[in-house]
Amino acid sequence: MATTRPVDASRRSGRARSAIHRAALDLTTEVGFTNVTVEAIAARAGVGKQTIYRWWSSKGAVVFDALLAANENAAGTLDLPDTGDVVADLRGVLRTMVAELAEPANDRLQRAVTAEIQHDRALAGEVVERLLRPQVDAIVARLRRAQEVGQLPPAADPAIVAELLIGPVFHRWLLRTGPLDPAFADSVVDHTVGTPGLGSADSAAV
Amino acid sequence: MATTRPVDASRRSGRARSAIHRAALDLTTEVGFTNVTVEAIAARAGVGKQTIYRWWSSKGAVVFDALLAANENAAGTLDLPDTGDVVADLRGVLRTMVAELAEPANDRLQRAVTAEIQHDRALAGEVVERLLRPQVDAIVARLRRAQEVGQLPPAADPAIVAELLIGPVFHRWLLRTGPLDPAFADSVVDHTVGTPGLGSADSAAV
Repeated sequence: MATTRPVDASRRSGRARSAIHRAALDLTTEVGFTNVTVEAIAARAGVGKQTIYRWWSSKGAVVFDALLAANENAAGTLDLPDTGDVVADLRGVLRTMVAELAEPANDRLQRAVTAEIQHDRALAGEVVERLLRPQVDAIVARLRRAQEVGQLPPAADPAIVAELLIGPVFHRWLLRTGPLDPAFADSVVDHTVGTPGLGSADSAAV
Repeated sequence: MATTRPVDASRRSGRARSAIHRAALDLTTEVGFTNVTVEAIAARAGVGKQTIYRWWSSKGAVVFDALLAANENAAGTLDLPDTGDVVADLRGVLRTMVAELAEPANDRLQRAVTAEIQHDRALAGEVVERLLRPQVDAIVARLRRAQEVGQLPPAADPAIVAELLIGPVFHRWLLRTGPLDPAFADSVVDHTVGTPGLGSADSAAV
């Protein structure tokens, strides 16, 4: 029979997707999002252009999906540590976030995505659901545990506190208004949950 | 004599600039940044295309400059009130900021600019210097006065506190993660300078 078994087709299509994802990320890093073409991604991935268009509507969609898939593969890092010290734990999270945004290849990729989602609302929704939401949820969960043990005032809203932690980091990155270094990460955490009276009593003030 | 006096030329060029600025803003609002062309701006402003290219290098540059000029014309609003209550004053500032970002025409314009500055670093620098810095400076100045009268702990860094106020607002706007309403503005202020122990003693907790 000329037909292949579904399991083979599915395995082959999984391999093609991975190759396309990798090609899209590599090319975006190498030549910048503006200069990437669907043709170049197809050539690098060793597939036909029509294979890409069968799964994605545009260059933006494929680069974006590649970024999301890469992030989901790294999703194991989203389980926030709970050492009992919310300030120390969140400093770790924000230091990682800041370091990732400062890394040149990732910076270029994220800027390409950020430009794209300004005029593509569906992609923006995907960024939020697949990229941002898991991070925010993990932070909120950690803040709730801190609240239960009295390291965050009962009146504080963990969802807003999470925005106070993430917002300044992305804003500084977006507009390049200052260094993205561990000192900045620590300072944001200390001013949000570490200042005496708002955060844990045993953490030092700024 | 065939030449005009310099003062006339300068007045005429000022009028042309204003017309170009207005045309650039109106067209961006009407058809979106992607669909605006330098030709259309020139036609709407009643000038030749070459007049625009004499002053600006690209569509992005002219739309952007128009936005900045409009903002500078409204710069009188940057003097923050000092009613003696830093929470009330900052709630006012953030409510205005949130309302401006939520306004549809301004939202579209700001998204066009945000997309543009992801790959144009010089324009990004101009946004920061001409658009963001005056707002941040005004907030920092207000926070310093609050610190002098004991409404902000001596250990707090007003520059970081300003980022905690502005960052979450822009991040929520950028990714559309929640409503941009007065309740959100108030909540950000209350969690940053209004929570007991961190902000003024006489302001209510969230």
